[in-house]
Amino acid sequence: MGLEDLKEAAGRRAVDFVRSGMRVGLGTGSTARYAILEIGRRIAAGELANIVGVATSVESESLARECGIAIETLDARPLDLAIDGADEIAPHLDLVKGAGAALLREKLVALAAREFVVVADHTKLVGRLGEKRAVPVEIVRFGFESTLRRLAAFGAPELRRQNDAPVVTDNGNLIADLRFSTGDPAGLAGELKLTAGVVETGFFLGMAARALVAFPAEVRELRR
Amino acid sequence: MGLEDLKEAAGRRAVDFVRSGMRVGLGTGSTARYAILEIGRRIAAGELANIVGVATSVESESLARECGIAIETLDARPLDLAIDGADEIAPHLDLVKGAGAALLREKLVALAAREFVVVADHTKLVGRLGEKRAVPVEIVRFGFESTLRRLAAFGAPELRRQNDAPVVTDNGNLIADLRFSTGDPAGLAGELKLTAGVVETGFFLGMAARALVAFPAEVRELRR
Repeated sequence: MGLEDLKEAAGRRAVDFVRSGMRVGLGTGSTARYAILEIGRRIAAGELANIVGVATSVESESLARECGIAIETLDARPLDLAIDGADEIAPHLDLVKGAGAALLREKLVALAAREFVVVADHTKLVGRLGEKRAVPVEIVRFGFESTLRRLAAFGAPELRRQNDAPVVTDNGNLIADLRFSTGDPAGLAGELKLTAGVVETGFFLGMAARALVAFPAEVRELRR
Repeated sequence: MGLEDLKEAAGRRAVDFVRSGMRVGLGTGSTARYAILEIGRRIAAGELANIVGVATSVESESLARECGIAIETLDARPLDLAIDGADEIAPHLDLVKGAGAALLREKLVALAAREFVVVADHTKLVGRLGEKRAVPVEIVRFGFESTLRRLAAFGAPELRRQNDAPVVTDNGNLIADLRFSTGDPAGLAGELKLTAGVVETGFFLGMAARALVAFPAEVRELRR
């Protein structure tokens, strides 16, 4: 099984937690994408009905609409479930997210959900957060260089670029990828969020209740 | 002297701290406006030269350009001085700002300045923050109703509207005005900033070094 098959297996398995009539948070990225496709397939097959999706990105919203999922915006009502990927999964299901630059909407949607289910392939499992990746930090565009200077107190920040231009999020902000080495991600997450110019961080701590992690032989369910 | 005269007296007095060659943060609002006009007047009169302004709003940038002040964006370099108004001034020069919806850029500019000078008329002095006004909180547009729910844990938030539409900041965000009653604004400021969906608060604590406060008979200089 290739990595793509593993992502598909994890994404599809999460849809077993979706029931007709649910309001579901729809994640962003290569694994969450398969969950959206599977919800669409089950709606088309008559296995699910009256599903409302709340999308975490413009990209996921487009895909969901193509799949025939009714889309609403995030309002004050809770969601029944949110399904999303992760870039790193540490013990107790602490996560780093944001490789797709959608971390702010992903966090707001996950917080609104009664249950947050993570989908991933096994390569995302780490012993501690930051082991393989930098943590993405969404920062305000105005004065971003002064904010990067403040972030340098916590690690090595790098403005994310694509085709030589800074990446702009769906919310009009920028992304700084911060390499860090602390063993206390909760402390770091708080310090970063308190920093002027920071909108949100890619640390998702104590939020996921369940992770469906695809290994070559099976999809394993991890609980917090 | 009417209130407008007091604002003018305070705004103009602050320009005594501006020296030729300085990079100066330019505030937003009815009192800071007079400082910008006075800088322009002194440049035109040959009393100041080589001033670079960094504006805290689109509005102040336009005014400064009309006044012949060269404008640059906020980058990694520090500013020599920032001049801005305040909505409430408590003992030790702790402030509430944001009535003009420019609090985020105002804070980023004030933080970048070696000295932050506040200009105000005496009606802005209070015994404790929150005495007369709500604290403005800049929040992300996406899912703003879920963020308002979280803010309700700290007081009574109200989405700021103008002509029946939500006020949108220069950064594309919304403003929630939060009535609160705590005697610990530092604690509240931290809790608010840590809240998902919150970008920045209107609490400016321990930031101002000096305030020029206009009374009918004189402009008094207060120091932290």
